[in-house]
Amino acid sequence: MISIEKSIAVLEEEVYQIARDLHQIPESGFEEYKTSAYIISVLENLGIDVFKGIAQTGIVGLLRGSEGKETIAFRADMDALSVEEKTDSPYGSKHPGMMHACGHDAHMTILLGLAKYLARHKNNLRQNIVFIFQPAEEGPGGAEPMIQAGVLDQFHIDKILGLHVFPEVEAGRVAVRPGPMMAQAGEFDLLIKGRSGHGAIPHMAKDAIVAAAALVSSYQSIVSRSVDPLEGAIVTIGKMWGGERRNIIAGEVHLEGTVRAFREDVFESIKRRMGQIAKGIETAYECSVELVFRDMYPAVINDESLYEDFVAAVGKEHVDSIAPQMIAEDFSFFQKEVPGLFFFLGVRSEKQNCIYPLHNCLFQYPEETLMTGIQVYVQYLRHVGILTPEDDA
Amino acid sequence: MISIEKSIAVLEEEVYQIARDLHQIPESGFEEYKTSAYIISVLENLGIDVFKGIAQTGIVGLLRGSEGKETIAFRADMDALSVEEKTDSPYGSKHPGMMHACGHDAHMTILLGLAKYLARHKNNLRQNIVFIFQPAEEGPGGAEPMIQAGVLDQFHIDKILGLHVFPEVEAGRVAVRPGPMMAQAGEFDLLIKGRSGHGAIPHMAKDAIVAAAALVSSYQSIVSRSVDPLEGAIVTIGKMWGGERRNIIAGEVHLEGTVRAFREDVFESIKRRMGQIAKGIETAYECSVELVFRDMYPAVINDESLYEDFVAAVGKEHVDSIAPQMIAEDFSFFQKEVPGLFFFLGVRSEKQNCIYPLHNCLFQYPEETLMTGIQVYVQYLRHVGILTPEDDA
Amino acid sequence: MISIEKSIAVLEEEVYQIARDLHQIPESGFEEYKTSAYIISVLENLGIDVFKGIAQTGIVGLLRGSEGKETIAFRADMDALSVEEKTDSPYGSKHPGMMHACGHDAHMTILLGLAKYLARHKNNLRQNIVFIFQPAEEGPGGAEPMIQAGVLDQFHIDKILGLHVFPEVEAGRVAVRPGPMMAQAGEFDLLIKGRSGHGAIPHMAKDAIVAAAALVSSYQSIVSRSVDPLEGAIVTIGKMWGGERRNIIAGEVHLEGTVRAFREDVFESIKRRMGQIAKGIETAYECSVELVFRDMYPAVINDESLYEDFVAAVGKEHVDSIAPQMIAEDFSFFQKEVPGLFFFLGVRSEKQNCIYPLHNCLFQYPEETLMTGIQVYVQYLRHVGILTPEDDA
Amino acid sequence: MISIEKSIAVLEEEVYQIARDLHQIPESGFEEYKTSAYIISVLENLGIDVFKGIAQTGIVGLLRGSEGKETIAFRADMDALSVEEKTDSPYGSKHPGMMHACGHDAHMTILLGLAKYLARHKNNLRQNIVFIFQPAEEGPGGAEPMIQAGVLDQFHIDKILGLHVFPEVEAGRVAVRPGPMMAQAGEFDLLIKGRSGHGAIPHMAKDAIVAAAALVSSYQSIVSRSVDPLEGAIVTIGKMWGGERRNIIAGEVHLEGTVRAFREDVFESIKRRMGQIAKGIETAYECSVELVFRDMYPAVINDESLYEDFVAAVGKEHVDSIAPQMIAEDFSFFQKEVPGLFFFLGVRSEKQNCIYPLHNCLFQYPEETLMTGIQVYVQYLRHVGILTPEDDA
Repeated sequence: MISIEKSIAVLEEEVYQIARDLHQIPESGFEEYKTSAYIISVLENLGIDVFKGIAQTGIVGLLRGSEGKETIAFRADMDALSVEEKTDSPYGSKHPGMMHACGHDAHMTILLGLAKYLARHKNNLRQNIVFIFQPAEEGPGGAEPMIQAGVLDQFHIDKILGLHVFPEVEAGRVAVRPGPMMAQAGEFDLLIKGRSGHGAIPHMAKDAIVAAAALVSSYQSIVSRSVDPLEGAIVTIGKMWGGERRNIIAGEVHLEGTVRAFREDVFESIKRRMGQIAKGIETAYECSVELVFRDMYPAVINDESLYEDFVAAVGKEHVDSIAPQMIAEDFSFFQKEVPGLFFFLGVRSEKQNCIYPLHNCLFQYPEETLMTGIQVYVQYLRHVGILTPEDDA
Repeated sequence: MISIEKSIAVLEEEVYQIARDLHQIPESGFEEYKTSAYIISVLENLGIDVFKGIAQTGIVGLLRGSEGKETIAFRADMDALSVEEKTDSPYGSKHPGMMHACGHDAHMTILLGLAKYLARHKNNLRQNIVFIFQPAEEGPGGAEPMIQAGVLDQFHIDKILGLHVFPEVEAGRVAVRPGPMMAQAGEFDLLIKGRSGHGAIPHMAKDAIVAAAALVSSYQSIVSRSVDPLEGAIVTIGKMWGGERRNIIAGEVHLEGTVRAFREDVFESIKRRMGQIAKGIETAYECSVELVFRDMYPAVINDESLYEDFVAAVGKEHVDSIAPQMIAEDFSFFQKEVPGLFFFLGVRSEKQNCIYPLHNCLFQYPEETLMTGIQVYVQYLRHVGILTPEDDA
Repeated sequence: MISIEKSIAVLEEEVYQIARDLHQIPESGFEEYKTSAYIISVLENLGIDVFKGIAQTGIVGLLRGSEGKETIAFRADMDALSVEEKTDSPYGSKHPGMMHACGHDAHMTILLGLAKYLARHKNNLRQNIVFIFQPAEEGPGGAEPMIQAGVLDQFHIDKILGLHVFPEVEAGRVAVRPGPMMAQAGEFDLLIKGRSGHGAIPHMAKDAIVAAAALVSSYQSIVSRSVDPLEGAIVTIGKMWGGERRNIIAGEVHLEGTVRAFREDVFESIKRRMGQIAKGIETAYECSVELVFRDMYPAVINDESLYEDFVAAVGKEHVDSIAPQMIAEDFSFFQKEVPGLFFFLGVRSEKQNCIYPLHNCLFQYPEETLMTGIQVYVQYLRHVGILTPEDDA
Repeated sequence: MISIEKSIAVLEEEVYQIARDLHQIPESGFEEYKTSAYIISVLENLGIDVFKGIAQTGIVGLLRGSEGKETIAFRADMDALSVEEKTDSPYGSKHPGMMHACGHDAHMTILLGLAKYLARHKNNLRQNIVFIFQPAEEGPGGAEPMIQAGVLDQFHIDKILGLHVFPEVEAGRVAVRPGPMMAQAGEFDLLIKGRSGHGAIPHMAKDAIVAAAALVSSYQSIVSRSVDPLEGAIVTIGKMWGGERRNIIAGEVHLEGTVRAFREDVFESIKRRMGQIAKGIETAYECSVELVFRDMYPAVINDESLYEDFVAAVGKEHVDSIAPQMIAEDFSFFQKEVPGLFFFLGVRSEKQNCIYPLHNCLFQYPEETLMTGIQVYVQYLRHVGILTPEDDA
């Protein structure tokens, strides 16, 4: 259990209030207007330079350190989900049909809490700190447009950290791993067009269902034969439909699926094999096969050296090693540009009934974990010497 | 071109009137009430014994011959289709959304015409004639319930003949083949149940789409390997759907299909193989596979000796040899009990725009072909000595 | 039982002697030198014009008729098989490892017996008769090279007849059918080349066994989906081998198979589909797939009018109707050029232990069936008026 | 480059002599008689207690430390391969057809070198050291029978270390990873029995090639769907053969393959899925499928705490992190009983032409790497305090 220092604990009430405020105003990706206004107000009150309206609703806060030779960024995401909240919290969502069911309200709160702490200990701050509030993490993704808007360059960001609350890790602990931690993701649509015809004269038709079956079976060989067995990879076809009537040979079949991998070359080779098999089925079954592939987020790959600093800062005994996760996160776009570290902040607490998975209508986290998040960030900053010993710490 | 004798041609106007009347009152299977009443009235006016209400709307007419040692039956079907008629006939359907698009009105008319002719030449009739008017040929089938009601036994039927108007054969001709002429049919539903789960953790789920693909591929081997290559057979899966979302592993897949064959042992072996493969997929993919198979109609198999008499009676030069048809017909139920012959009566005439397929909203036939049908039946009765030379023929 | 007339029966001893002589000197295709010399000697002794050395060992004998307006050919095949005879016949093979296990000795004997009969009744012969003795029926085929050598044109052949002894038909009977009677045949080799590699690093290899499995499964869909279900067709892969060691990914797989069909368009469409699927597998599995297809013999398709004459000549009661046979015969090359009829001569006799299939080391036929063969040919010639009534018949 | 201390370097000539002697007498598994005698002689000369004839040719040497509270074992394997040596070494194999192509001679030499060092510095040794020389690592495995003979219990072994020379790692370095490092392995044979028959009557046969194809395709779904995508796993069918002739339907197909995984539950679930699919194919294709599975070695799984001590002892800068290897090693049997660490000793040296893979007839290693092996072991013993500072070190 990571213990909360007094100098941080004093912020408790203010931090909880922020969390409660934000939780009540969940908004869709790129439409986080109230949320944005709230954040801006907090930051400005702290005397932090604020840059707003980046990638629509995104915000950057800048707090300069005494030396200013280096800039380190912290990132939070702002969007909520179209989920109807079912918790009995007195601070529940006031936007019907919307809920911060993925805990982004906690992410923002922790970042604002960190801002409060650092503003208060500005004299101990040697390097520059950038606070990034990003829209639309749940899709289609706000990290990439913020980068395209020049955020990393403009503020000369050298490193970036981010976190996600995680109900599979105990409250008071963190989980992280060096290298690949969360998967690269893509999605695809397949449309197989044969030629429909009477079920009793198959030779005059091109049976799209038979072609689709061969394609699905062949796609199994991608992971079994074309991917390094030491690499995690997934090709899932989750949905399939085709044909009109039992005695009419199906002229069309639709398939929809998703791809996951940790290494970009693995991901690309899966896409290549999917395309080849689609082409092969076209030829073999005299059909047309249209494959539309959409790249989603890159893999979250943690910088080895940041990882070691981070673990040392937090204390090995408080850190769970975690297997790579097949879920995706657009923090990875930042990591493609600068060294970055992403970790999971434990929020599981059976006692407090914080046991529901992310995206669930009953999801909640213990408020104390907000303080843990701030504590962890502060410890990291001290460990790497960005924050010199504070008087009250 | 089969020529129409004067003694038959005199019935022309009466026959056409019957056809026009019946065409205007198309009714669904087992609901042919108006049609039934019409037929009863015609038969009773001819002094023919009428037995009604068999299998709901079915009718049997009995005309005794002088010797009465043998009984031969002729069968017509009575039901229409839920098709909106699009022809410009002045005698078009008066029942919106219903149409005699499969020509059963012609079948009934020919049988009533034959009844008129035989009633008029009763003195020449040596054996008994039974006129069977059967409901619901288009499904679920009226032949079987009429047999179950005892029609064949009660009237001591020795042989049975039937016909279908056929737009792929020229008007004025007939088409027939000995042995298997129309297929046995069955339909099936398959429900594959695996276990759904997140697309990123496939090992916790049982992917029903992958199992379904294997089943579809394996089903191809039934016709390719388990059926005598000299026997016609079809296993078509015409419809398939499963899965909810692209990134959720599909827990269920539904498939619907149809089976056709000419020989009962082939048909049964296909069903057996379908069941075995379904069981095998269950085991191999840890799914449950529910196969529901519904037998439809048996194959239409023409008696060889009836065939030869029929061809000799009609004249070889007027008869087209025809390949077995993969479509089905419940006349076959009668043929399972007594020797039977079913033939196609040509109704194609480009000149008269009679070119549309059965079940089409533009289907129609040349009225003269009604006379051809009567002529063919009369020739047959003469050829086998049931009808002695009529004075006016 | 087709009865043997006295005028034919008188030839019995001579005919049996020829059969015994020929049976003892079985020779390979295109190496039938002793056989050829024997036939030439018999024909020349009969005063028949002999043309020799056609397609190596082939022979044509010509017997002119009084009118000579028409020429009808009869064909026998000459080659034997590399089978070690196991019968206890006193006239068994004198050539070790070779045997007339397919009955071609009977075919030649019947033709020479017919020649004897016709030479003796030359005065009754109105049209020309050509006796064709053809090498290498068992493969690679002697019919085609004899046609290429001009046999059909040079002798102005109008029609051709041939027969095969058949142990599935009772001795004393014949079996025949109009239209397609024996299948078109082809054979193919497939070589799938992937890239071998250690079994533990599949992504560095291209698994030819996985590709071959997909190809075999896809080939099942040719017969199940791409061939008219009313048409007999077969694609059999009879042999398959690949890979070197269990833990080395297979770099090569070989497959060998055969194709059969009755209609040339069906046969060609099967070849086309095989090629498309092979190409598709190449693309889908990053392998090379080499498909070598060798056309063998066309289908034996009996002329309808010859068939009717033949049945009438033999007497319907002596003729079995027979389903099309999936085996092949190069008599079909003649039929592609002129109307031809091929039939099976029954040689089954349990009493005489003539029950073994063709190509079996115990195969034998009742000697009387040689006379039946001659009798049938003579009856045909009489029926079509080529042979006028003989005094002694 | 791990540097060799003087106190160790002084053993160089003696060590090299041992290596040369052993290299010249390669022997098969469980027949390492000369090798065994040689080792016994060296150990006895050092005054070490020797226990011999364990699991036939296995040897245990025991050197007691001053405290003797703990016992640590070092293991070397003794067997060679049936490979014809092709190197030009003056100390090449004197046993024709046998060669130490897997470097086990180096492993024994390093252990004997360590014994020499420790015997010389016996005064500094606080705990007990056990030297295990094990037969038949290449198969069927000597580790398991030595454990069954009681070696671990009898000598109260607490921990065990082992190494393998590795030509993919540079000489002077070592490579290791915590947790799973080498795969669990198994091999399998499949025999699919259908029923052979003529290629033209498939419905009378059960085509084993079609069944085998379906099985191969279904086996792809094991890794793609039934294994945790984060777990390395392999199912390879490396060899396949079946059928006799192209036009005979194959009655039998044989398949041979290998399975690899790192986690035992994954390995077991693969076996279970293989069995289920085999059963499913039996049912679906009316064949019998015999699956014989042979468990080989467990996975090499390195103890985390031993790993950390080891890396610290050797110095992080000299240790390569290495991905898990899909190859197998029976050192794993020891690790199932006591905490164990296995590492790769780099022997690659382009300059010295030491570039050939293990099992290759040209495989060789730089003699200096023998000293590196001893050095590493000594450093480990010092680091964990088993060896107190030696005077000359």
